[in-house]
Amino acid sequence: MKNFDAIFNPKSIAIIGASKTEGKVGYSIMKNLMSFDGKLYPVNPKYDEISGLKCYKSVLDIDDEIDLAIVVVPAQAVPKVMEECGEKGVKGAVIISAGFSEVGNYELEEEVKKIIKKYNIATIGPNCLGIMNTYRNLNTTFGKLFPNKGNISIISQSGAVLTAILDISPLLNLGFSKIVSIGNKIDVQESDLMEYLMTDETTEVVVLYIEGLKDKRFLSVAKKLSKVKPIIALKSGRTEEGAKAASSHTGSLAGSDEIYSAAFREGGILRADTFEELVNLMHIFSTQPLMKFNEIGIVTNAGGFGVMAADMCKKYGVKLANFEEKTKEKLKEKLPKTATISNPLDIIGDADTERYKNAVSTLMEDKNVSGLLVILTPQEMTKPLEVAEEIVKLKEYYRENGIKKPIVTSFVGGASIKGAKSYLRKNGIPSYITPEAGIEALSYLYKYSKMKTKEDWDEYLEKIRKEFEEIKDNNKETIEKLFTNLNEYTAKKFLKLHGIPVPKGYIAKNKEEAIRYAKELGSRLVMKIVSPDILHKSDAGCVIINPQDVGKAYETIINNAKRYFEDHGIDGVIEGVLIEEFVDGLEIIVGGKRDEIFGPVVMTGLGGVFVEVLKDVSFGIYPITKEYAHEMLKELKSYKILEGVRGRPKRDIKSIVDLIVKLGVMMELYDEIKEIDMNPVFVKEDGKGCCVGDALIILKK
Amino acid sequence: MKNFDAIFNPKSIAIIGASKTEGKVGYSIMKNLMSFDGKLYPVNPKYDEISGLKCYKSVLDIDDEIDLAIVVVPAQAVPKVMEECGEKGVKGAVIISAGFSEVGNYELEEEVKKIIKKYNIATIGPNCLGIMNTYRNLNTTFGKLFPNKGNISIISQSGAVLTAILDISPLLNLGFSKIVSIGNKIDVQESDLMEYLMTDETTEVVVLYIEGLKDKRFLSVAKKLSKVKPIIALKSGRTEEGAKAASSHTGSLAGSDEIYSAAFREGGILRADTFEELVNLMHIFSTQPLMKFNEIGIVTNAGGFGVMAADMCKKYGVKLANFEEKTKEKLKEKLPKTATISNPLDIIGDADTERYKNAVSTLMEDKNVSGLLVILTPQEMTKPLEVAEEIVKLKEYYRENGIKKPIVTSFVGGASIKGAKSYLRKNGIPSYITPEAGIEALSYLYKYSKMKTKEDWDEYLEKIRKEFEEIKDNNKETIEKLFTNLNEYTAKKFLKLHGIPVPKGYIAKNKEEAIRYAKELGSRLVMKIVSPDILHKSDAGCVIINPQDVGKAYETIINNAKRYFEDHGIDGVIEGVLIEEFVDGLEIIVGGKRDEIFGPVVMTGLGGVFVEVLKDVSFGIYPITKEYAHEMLKELKSYKILEGVRGRPKRDIKSIVDLIVKLGVMMELYDEIKEIDMNPVFVKEDGKGCCVGDALIILKK
Repeated sequence: MKNFDAIFNPKSIAIIGASKTEGKVGYSIMKNLMSFDGKLYPVNPKYDEISGLKCYKSVLDIDDEIDLAIVVVPAQAVPKVMEECGEKGVKGAVIISAGFSEVGNYELEEEVKKIIKKYNIATIGPNCLGIMNTYRNLNTTFGKLFPNKGNISIISQSGAVLTAILDISPLLNLGFSKIVSIGNKIDVQESDLMEYLMTDETTEVVVLYIEGLKDKRFLSVAKKLSKVKPIIALKSGRTEEGAKAASSHTGSLAGSDEIYSAAFREGGILRADTFEELVNLMHIFSTQPLMKFNEIGIVTNAGGFGVMAADMCKKYGVKLANFEEKTKEKLKEKLPKTATISNPLDIIGDADTERYKNAVSTLMEDKNVSGLLVILTPQEMTKPLEVAEEIVKLKEYYRENGIKKPIVTSFVGGASIKGAKSYLRKNGIPSYITPEAGIEALSYLYKYSKMKTKEDWDEYLEKIRKEFEEIKDNNKETIEKLFTNLNEYTAKKFLKLHGIPVPKGYIAKNKEEAIRYAKELGSRLVMKIVSPDILHKSDAGCVIINPQDVGKAYETIINNAKRYFEDHGIDGVIEGVLIEEFVDGLEIIVGGKRDEIFGPVVMTGLGGVFVEVLKDVSFGIYPITKEYAHEMLKELKSYKILEGVRGRPKRDIKSIVDLIVKLGVMMELYDEIKEIDMNPVFVKEDGKGCCVGDALIILKK
Repeated sequence: MKNFDAIFNPKSIAIIGASKTEGKVGYSIMKNLMSFDGKLYPVNPKYDEISGLKCYKSVLDIDDEIDLAIVVVPAQAVPKVMEECGEKGVKGAVIISAGFSEVGNYELEEEVKKIIKKYNIATIGPNCLGIMNTYRNLNTTFGKLFPNKGNISIISQSGAVLTAILDISPLLNLGFSKIVSIGNKIDVQESDLMEYLMTDETTEVVVLYIEGLKDKRFLSVAKKLSKVKPIIALKSGRTEEGAKAASSHTGSLAGSDEIYSAAFREGGILRADTFEELVNLMHIFSTQPLMKFNEIGIVTNAGGFGVMAADMCKKYGVKLANFEEKTKEKLKEKLPKTATISNPLDIIGDADTERYKNAVSTLMEDKNVSGLLVILTPQEMTKPLEVAEEIVKLKEYYRENGIKKPIVTSFVGGASIKGAKSYLRKNGIPSYITPEAGIEALSYLYKYSKMKTKEDWDEYLEKIRKEFEEIKDNNKETIEKLFTNLNEYTAKKFLKLHGIPVPKGYIAKNKEEAIRYAKELGSRLVMKIVSPDILHKSDAGCVIINPQDVGKAYETIINNAKRYFEDHGIDGVIEGVLIEEFVDGLEIIVGGKRDEIFGPVVMTGLGGVFVEVLKDVSFGIYPITKEYAHEMLKELKSYKILEGVRGRPKRDIKSIVDLIVKLGVMMELYDEIKEIDMNPVFVKEDGKGCCVGDALIILKK
C-alpha cells in the first residue's frame, strides 16, 4: 500500500510555493495549515520568513525529515520541485497546482508521473483542492471551510462538489474524518484511498464523487471495503448529455453508465442518483444503525403525508410492518378513539408531545418493526421542539437498552420547525425535508445490510475456471487455428470446446456436400451463408429454414450472397454454407465485451424487441458467480417471461445462468477476445437446456 | 356558479361557535378574523360580547345581512345552526366542525347536505381548516399562519399539507391569493373553486392537493382552467400501499392511479410526484414566464454540477441549446482561455461576479436559449450575494426590454450561500437546493406551454359522435336484442354496426352448419366455442385454428366444452361454435371501462407480455380526439414496434387511432355498457387496417 500515513498523519509538512501575498493560493494554504498539530516548513525562494516560520529556498535546504509536501508552484515548475522532493526523500505529496492534462498538457503530466515513480512518492493530484484530516487539524486546501470531526470520509473528483458538501455539512451536523480532492490522479487512485480507509479507525462511511475512473483495482477493492463499511457514490455523466459535458470538463471519459451501475452493484456500492440523495444518504449512514429487515413503521400527525410516505414505500421497495397484536392494543389504549391503528400510524392533527412519545416508543418495542419514520407538520397543538427532544431521548434510551433501530424524521415546514430540525440533527437523528427522502434513506440502509452477504466466488465459478484453463492449455493449436479464421462455424466450435451447447452442423462447400450433410442431420434444418462480408445474413436472403430442397436452397443462398456483394460493391468471400439441425426456443441474447476499466463484462437480455426497443438488458462484471448471474436475470423486466407467465412454459433458467458464468470466465481467460455475441440463444423449457443459435467472436486488433 | 363572492369577499361574517376561551378553535378563529376588513358578528349563546364585539345567541338575532357563516359548533349542533343560517338567508358557509363521514357519521353529513341544498348555501367543508383571502385579510382558519399576498391559490384536501405549505412559504417568498381547505366536500367541490379561480384576477397559479375526487366536473373544468392558468396537482395514494392508507384516512377511495394520471394529462394539469416537487413547481410558476421552446442554457462555476444538471436534462426531456455563433465569440472574448465554450457553460472555479454577469447576459441575448439555470458553488473567489444581486438586476433589465426568459438558480451549499438564496427568492428568482430540481422545474414550464395548445375536440370526433348517435337511434331494436344475449358473436355484431372491423363469421349450431359456413368462408378459419360459461376459451381447448377437418373440429370443441363443464361442476350453456375467417397481424388490446369520477376510459397496449408482464398500457378519458388517441399510443414504451423497428413492418397506426376514438364515443353513448374488451385486435401493415379478433362486452347490472 502507498504511504498514506505520510499524507494523512505527517510529522512534518513542506509547503512548496507558500506565499505572503493575500489572495494567492499559497497564502491561503499556509494560513489553513497554521492550525496543524505538526511541523511546518514553508518553501519559497522569495521569502525568508512566512507567518513567523523560517522560509526555505528549496525543500533540499530543510534540516529535517519531510513526510508531506504540498505543492502550489506553477505547473511548469512542478517537475523541478518534485525532483527535489525525491532527492530529499519526501514520502508523500499533494500537488494543488493546475495546468496539466485537464488543459491538454499531457506531456508535462507524464514528466511529473515519471519523477514520482522514480522516487516512489505517494502523490495526490495534480489539479486538486487538497486533503484534510480533521483528527490532526490538517487542512492543505486553500478553502475557507473546515468541517467538524466525524465518521465520514470523502474522495471527490471535483473540488467544487467537495466545497458544496463542506458548506452544507454544518446544517446537517455532518462530521468528517479524511477528505480528499483527488484531482487528475497521476498516482493515487480511488482504490488506493479506499484500501487505506478500510482500516482507518475514524472512518465509518466512505463517500465517492466520481466523474470517470482510471482505476483498474477499483472494483476489487470496493468489494472488500463494502463488506466492512458502506460506500456511497455519486457518479455524474450518466447520460449522453452528461457524458459530453464530462469529457470537456476534466478530460476524463465517462464510461458507459450501465457498466458503472453493474460495477457499483457488484462492488456493494450504494449509488446516489442526485447530489441531494448523496447528502441524504451521508446523513443517515453516518448516524443510524443498519436496518435488520425491511418492515418499517411510520408515525404521522398528518394523514396526507402518511399517504405520501406509503406511496414512496412502494417506489423504494420498503414494506410497511404489520404491528404486533400487543402494539395494537397499547396504541388503542393510548391514542384517541378517532385514530385508526394502522401503518402509517396517523396520530391525528391534534397530537401533542405525549402522543408522539407513546407512538414512537410502542413502535420501537414492536418486533415486527425494523425502522421508523416520524413525520410532523406544525399544526395548532404541535410543539415541534418538544417532540424532537422526546425522540432524541427515546433513541438514546433504546440504544442503551440494546434496541438498535434506525429512526429518521421528516418535520415538514419552515420557520415553525426550524429549531426542532436543528435539534434532531445535532443529536444524531436525520431530519429530511420530505417524508419521501426519509423512506428513500431507510431503503438504502436495508439495501446495504442485504448487500453485505453477497459472495464474490462460488465453487462452480472456480470449477469452470479450472476446466477452462485446462481446455485452454490442452487445445492451444486448435484454438489458434479457430481464431485465425473466425466465422459462425468456427466460433461455435470454440464455444463447443468449452461445453457450450451449439447445434450440430457442418460447412458445405458445394451442393453435393450440402445434400449429404442434410441427410445426416435429419429433416429440420437451418442453412446459412458463411462469409466474413455479410453481417446481417437474413436481410441478405442468406438464411433458409427447413428447406424443401436442400440443393436448391444451397444455390439460392450462394446466389443471394453474390447478389449482395454486387449490390454493395464488395469483392466478398464465401466460405461455404453452414447446415445445422434446426433449434428453437425462447430467444435471448448473451454477450461479452471488455471494459477498459472493469475488464470482462457480460450482458444479457431477452431477444427481439426487449433488447432493441425496450433496452431491457443487464450487465455483470467478471467474476460472475451462479448467484450473481441469476441476479442479472432477475434484474430484467422481462424475467417473468423466463419464469413462465400466464400459461407459457417456464424456461431453463439454470442453463442461462451456466452460460453467463461460462462466458465470464471465457472473456477473462482469452484476453485476445474483444467481443462475443451469442444472439440468439434458444432457451428451451425447464430442464431441457439452451442452445446457441448464432455466434460472433471479434478479436482485438 | 356558486356564490363564491360571499365566501371570499364577504361584507359581513357570522362566527357561529365563537369563543372567549383560549385554546378553543372558536377562540383562535375569532382572533384571526379580527384583521378582516369587513363586519364581524360572533354567535354563541354563552356570551354577550367577544373581543369587544356584541355576541349573538343565534345568527337569526343579527340585525344585518350575513354573507358568510363560519361554523365551529360540535358536529351534532351543525344541522340546527345551518337551518338557522338558511332561514337568515346566509349566502355562504365554511363548516370547520369535524365528526362527519370521516369518522363514519354518514347520516349526520347527509342531513347537513339536505339543509344547505334546501337553502342554497355555498358551503365549504365540513371537517376543514377553513379558507383565506389575503387580499381581504380574511383568515377563517384557527392556525397561526397567514401568508403574504401573491398569485398562487391552493385547494387542499388535507389541512396539514396546507399548514406545511404555509409554513414553508416565507422561506421561498411564496405569496398567495385564495387558500381553501376543502374538507369532506359535501357541497363545494374542486371544480367549483377552479371555475371561480379561472376569472379571479389575483390568481395566476392554481395548486391542488388531492387524496380522492368525488367531482364529476373536475376534468371538464380543468381543461378550461389550464388553458388560462397553470394547475399543479399533488395526488397522494398513488400505489396500493398509499391507497390503503388513503381509504383509512379521509374515507375517500383513491381511484386507480393510471386513470388519475390520464385525467391530469388530459386536463392540462401538471402532476407533481412528491411534496418537494409541488413546492418547487409553485416556486417557478409563481415567478417565471413560460419557456417558449425547449433549449436551455446552463452557467456554472463547478464542472461537476454542470455535468449533473446535464444528466438531469436527459431525464426530464430538456435540451441543451446550441449557442449562436455570436454568443460563442462574445464568450471567448470575455471568459478565460481555459474555459471551454460549451453548454453547460463552465465559467470555472475562480469565476467572479463580473464573469457571471457576462455569461448570464450573453445567454439571455442568445436566440437559441429559451431559459437559464445558473449554478453557483461557494468557492474561494465566489461572492454569492453579489452574484445574486447581479442576476436579479439582469432579470429586471431584460424583462423591461421585452426578453422574457425564465431564470432559475441553484446555489449549492449551506451558510455561505444562505443570504444569496434569500435575496434571489425575495426578488422573484427561484433558488433550488440542487441543479436537478432547477432542471425539473424548467422542464415543467415548457411542458405547460406545450400543453396549452391541445384541442379537446376535433372534426373527426364530432363526426363519429354524430354517426354513432344516428346508429343508436336507427337500430334501437337490434341493439336491444344483441344486448339481451351478449357473447363474442353478438358483441362483434354490435361493433360491426358501428363500423369497427371484425372477421366475417357465423355461429354454427351443428356439424353440418359448420361445414357449410366453412365452405363460404374459405380455407383459413378459426373455430371457437360460444358459451357464457367459458371465459378462457383457449385454455379449455375450445379454439381451433385452421382445422383440417371442420366437422371433426366442431365435435372436438363441443366435447372439450362439455368436459370443461364437468371438470368445473358447471351446468354450462353452449350457444354454438363461432366460425370465422382467419385474421392475423400484430396483437394489441383496446378496452373501455367506466370510471366513477371521470366517466368513459379507454385503455390500449400491445398484447401478450407487454400488457401482462410489462404493464405497458396507456389510458385516455372521453372525449378522445384523433390527436389524443395518437398520443396515447406514443406514450407506450412499445410504440416503436408499431412504427416498425429493425426491418419489421410499420403497422396501421391510423386504424388503431380510429378504433380508440370510436370506442370512446361508444362508451359515452351506451351508458349501459360497463366494460368492453377487444383482445386481441390484429393490426395489419400500414394502410391495411386492423381487425378485432375477440370481443367481450359487459353490461352494468
